[in-house]
Amino acid sequence: MSTLQRTDLTTVKRAPDRGNYDIEKIYAILDATPLCHVGYTVEQQPIVTPTIHWRLGDKIYWHGSRISRTLVAPEQKPVCITVTHLDGLVLARSAFHHSANYRSVMVFGQPEPVTDRVEKTEALKVLIDKMMPGRWDTLRPMTEKEFSATGVLSLPLNEASAKIRTGGPKDLESDLEFPVWAGVLPLTTLTGSPLPCSHNQPDQMEPANLRDYSIG
Amino acid sequence: MSTLQRTDLTTVKRAPDRGNYDIEKIYAILDATPLCHVGYTVEQQPIVTPTIHWRLGDKIYWHGSRISRTLVAPEQKPVCITVTHLDGLVLARSAFHHSANYRSVMVFGQPEPVTDRVEKTEALKVLIDKMMPGRWDTLRPMTEKEFSATGVLSLPLNEASAKIRTGGPKDLESDLEFPVWAGVLPLTTLTGSPLPCSHNQPDQMEPANLRDYSIG
Repeated sequence: MSTLQRTDLTTVKRAPDRGNYDIEKIYAILDATPLCHVGYTVEQQPIVTPTIHWRLGDKIYWHGSRISRTLVAPEQKPVCITVTHLDGLVLARSAFHHSANYRSVMVFGQPEPVTDRVEKTEALKVLIDKMMPGRWDTLRPMTEKEFSATGVLSLPLNEASAKIRTGGPKDLESDLEFPVWAGVLPLTTLTGSPLPCSHNQPDQMEPANLRDYSIG
Repeated sequence: MSTLQRTDLTTVKRAPDRGNYDIEKIYAILDATPLCHVGYTVEQQPIVTPTIHWRLGDKIYWHGSRISRTLVAPEQKPVCITVTHLDGLVLARSAFHHSANYRSVMVFGQPEPVTDRVEKTEALKVLIDKMMPGRWDTLRPMTEKEFSATGVLSLPLNEASAKIRTGGPKDLESDLEFPVWAGVLPLTTLTGSPLPCSHNQPDQMEPANLRDYSIG
């Protein structure tokens, strides 16, 4: 897992069996979690910021306050956005062959600020509706001030690649009889019971689809 | 969540209520997952690589093949290592106040290759024993060739900071009566049932502490 390398949709990877250029698989990995890590550089210092991303067609989006460095610094400079699902620990018979099962996507490019009013509105709607389908239309509408204060960046998925490791340990043939338990400890992310805000109206029902949310 | 900024243990943050300088809390966030994202720069291009990290005292470690770019490129250049737990989706009454609960640590500095034999051996033992306590001593011992082929980097936690968001939505006072469900959808990572390798010996017992593993 530590040896992911920068690649694009057509470059051969170091570990070809873990590379995957199928764009639908890239979409699926991106869509399965809101969490991404955005990497950018400020005065020679790489900075990796966790943030919420979402996808609309063939672009990935993220947002923030228009005065935050997370938005201002990466604008029109190269970034790398990485999304990772850790799916399990792979316990082998030798320390050297221990590994992790994971699905990961890396996206490279120069983000652009989303300034078009229609695209920005649609993008923010997709963000909210990714958290809960249909939620945007049920909210107190966004004010002009909030809309202006929210910066949105987009990055096309032109240069994106996925790496996926699945399966058990890949021990040396000569180690297979070594008397230690080997296998995989699977990891999954689950949603818990929703915690309602104490200010909710007494008759406020929990949305029927709130518990449909899935991640990972 | 999108507005995390680079800070160190003494710098005031943009959102002071989310900053946390308590080193024990930084350790706890780092120790609660093996997954980190390492950011480094190669020819102006930021690269964010998911990898497995671990901690020993006041240093964070990661490893990889000695020929992988993940190790060679960051050596003695500035990196940023970020560890993030996404703890929940925060659903507010306005789109603008939607957020995420999370715990995150960012570590900055220049990594150094671990070349001392004693430190490197101890570091690799801690890595394996973090996956399962006591496992190192039960494995087929590491060969000299494997030991040499494994590169380990370390980074002191001198410049590290944590950000934590907990709790419910922080809506405007004037929105509190808006008739929509608001609250938090918690997210947790769980371990599943261990999947034994098909080559395990027929009498190979599952280690008693394998199911004690916790993450998040």
